[in-house]
Parts: sequence; C-alpha cells; structure tokens
Amino acid sequence: MVKKKIEISAYARNNQIASQNRKFFYDNGIFSINIIGSPGCGKTSILEYMASNFEHSFGVIIGDVKTALDADRIIRAGNNFSYPIETGGGCHISSSMIKDKLEVIETDIEYLFIENVGNLVCPSSFDLGENFKVAVLSIPEGDEKVRKYPTLFLKSDAVIINKIDLLDYMDYDIDRVEEDCRIHNPKVQIFKTSVKTGAGFPEWFDFLTNKRKHF
Amino acid sequence: MVKKKIEISAYARNNQIASQNRKFFYDNGIFSINIIGSPGCGKTSILEYMASNFEHSFGVIIGDVKTALDADRIIRAGNNFSYPIETGGGCHISSSMIKDKLEVIETDIEYLFIENVGNLVCPSSFDLGENFKVAVLSIPEGDEKVRKYPTLFLKSDAVIINKIDLLDYMDYDIDRVEEDCRIHNPKVQIFKTSVKTGAGFPEWFDFLTNKRKHF
Repeated sequence: MVKKKIEISAYARNNQIASQNRKFFYDNGIFSINIIGSPGCGKTSILEYMASNFEHSFGVIIGDVKTALDADRIIRAGNNFSYPIETGGGCHISSSMIKDKLEVIETDIEYLFIENVGNLVCPSSFDLGENFKVAVLSIPEGDEKVRKYPTLFLKSDAVIINKIDLLDYMDYDIDRVEEDCRIHNPKVQIFKTSVKTGAGFPEWFDFLTNKRKHF
Repeated sequence: MVKKKIEISAYARNNQIASQNRKFFYDNGIFSINIIGSPGCGKTSILEYMASNFEHSFGVIIGDVKTALDADRIIRAGNNFSYPIETGGGCHISSSMIKDKLEVIETDIEYLFIENVGNLVCPSSFDLGENFKVAVLSIPEGDEKVRKYPTLFLKSDAVIINKIDLLDYMDYDIDRVEEDCRIHNPKVQIFKTSVKTGAGFPEWFDFLTNKRKHF
C-alpha cells in the first residue's frame, strides 16, 4: 500500500505542475503540442521540415535520454528557439522538466512543440500541460503498433503516420492502422506525412492553425 | 528520501527474483537471452526466422503492453514453446513476470529467448535472470540510437543491426554505429541481419552455440 500511495502522489505532483505549465502557456498565448513516438519514427525530422515550411513562430523542447543532438538539428534547420532536455536515463519528460525550461524559453512564439523521449509507453502517462498530444507512427515499424501500445492512442487528438513514401516498399496495411486508431479515439485526426515529398504537411499545418484558433 | 528507499528496494526485489530465475535456468540447462529494442525493429521477425532455421530447441517468452499477437506469430512459424506476457501498461518485463511463466514453460529446451516490451529505455534496467542481453537496432530507425540511448549498449554482450537489406536505400552510417557500440562495450559482438536474405544469421547462430558451451 505504501508503494501505491507514493505512485499516486508522483502522478498527482506531475499533474499539479502540468497545470501551472498550462496556465503559463495560456497567459503567454503559446499553443503547445506533446509529440510522442518510437525511437526513429521521425519526430525530429518532422520538426526540421517544419522549421523551413511552417509559417508561424514556434519553439521546440526536445527530450533525450542522452545528448542534445536533436535540438542541434532543429537549430541547424533554422529554428533558433530550440531547447534540449537530457533526462539522464529517464524514459519520459516530466512536467517539472518543462517548468524548468519555461524560465529560459522565448515566450514571443505562437506554438511550442515538445518532442518527448523516443518511447511508445511511458510518455503517454505524463501530462506536461500541453494542449494536445500527437502520436507519431512510421511505416517501417510495422502496422500493429496501435493494437500493441493502446494507451497513447487513447490520449492523442492526432496521429501522424510518417515515412509514407516507403508505403509501396513494405507490407503495411494502412487502412487497418487508421481503423485501429479510430477504435481508441473516433475523433482522431490522421495525417500521412513524408519529409522527403512534403506529403501530408499542408493538412497538418491547417490542423494546427485551426486548433490554435479555439485555444 | 522515502521515495529513494522504495526505488532501491524495487530494484533489489527484482534482482532477488532474477537470481532465482537464473538458478532455475541453470538447473534445467536452459541458456536464456533477453532481447531488447524499439517497437518495430524486428525482434519478433528475428524469432520467426529462427523458428525455421535455428537447429536447437528453444522457447520464447514475449512481452507486450497489450495483445498476444507476437507470441501467436512465433507459434505459427513453427515454435510451439511460445508464451505471451501482457504487461497491461507496463513498459518492461520484470523478473517476477518471468518467474510466473517458469511454472508453465517446457523445460526440455536448450535456449529461452525473452522478447522484451518494445522500448530502448526501461527494459535495460531490469535483470530477468538471463545469461546475456542483446540489443536490436534497425536501419530505418536512424544511426544515432546508440548515442541517444546509451544504457542498453553498456549492458549488452551483443548487438543485432537488423533490416540490413535496407542499407542501400537509406542514409545510415553503419561504421559509426559499430564504433559507438564499441565505445560502450569494447567486447560487444555485432551482427548485421536480414530476415529477407538470411544475412548475418549463420554468425548469430554460431555465437549462440559457442556462448552456450561456456554456460
């Protein structure tokens, strides 16, 4: 019972700080998105693509177990409001890690994208104060990920199926994946993207812009 | 401080049960391998390939957050000693989940492969009583995973770089990946495999056979 109590209080503490972050974002007009997906599904590449193509000001906070490689990539792609978090072994970003960054981030931005640690399991259980979560899948991972890792898809308003340019070369049942996503969330918005061809990004950008209007 | 103590005791309890599992494996002549990698890197496909091509008796325990899809795949591939663990939200297999399976598994096998939950972070911190850990990477994930998720590579005796048939189609610096692996473990054995071509499997099978001799 002691263990249970402490677990509950860890989530409660995380939620409490997430609420403070949410207030900070709202007060500063920052619309924030928590990006969750496996290692290598293309989260950073999507943000690199957006650095050149999304016509709104945005910042990026990027969590990695080790290194600031990904944040450096975004800066090189032309977005100067990119901040790394090194979790030092931790499997997810917590709301307190975000809170620490709020003191240093540029607040004159419209959007803040938080790229979580590459992990389909743990990050989905921790609210960071974001406006919504987006789950990122990729074609080479295989088409059964929604069934095997359901929690993330219950909690995500949007799903990006990335590396769509590889669809013709792999045995991937995309209709089944979309169906599985809708079982968990009938209102989910699904985007099929490729940073190589630019496919799906106009729809993703429209979605972000519309969603921010109802902020 | 209370939290710290409880964390330590959770690991200590896990290690204690892992030692009991290790004794069970040793007493029954079962050589066991803990397979860890991202979702979609090909852990189950490797075991499917082995079901047809590895000339030794083996069992498989497969952990998934949800579903028994992967264990079913191994059975369909011809290995009848395949047992699912559904972690129900958990991000790794614990030694006690393995212990529960020891009552039902076929003990007249030479090898037991434990396919962990698809996750590059959490599973590396939990000893299950295995003889060694193998980390599975795959070409489409990108070539910076060893740098970004170092713990697993500190603890793995072997690394499988899978989907090697895709190397020509992707920007992946395999020499750099091998170098990164050796920084963390100079003695690591690296295998470059493809279930489509069978590449790398003869070397992987030799390694398993030799390793079991010194069991």
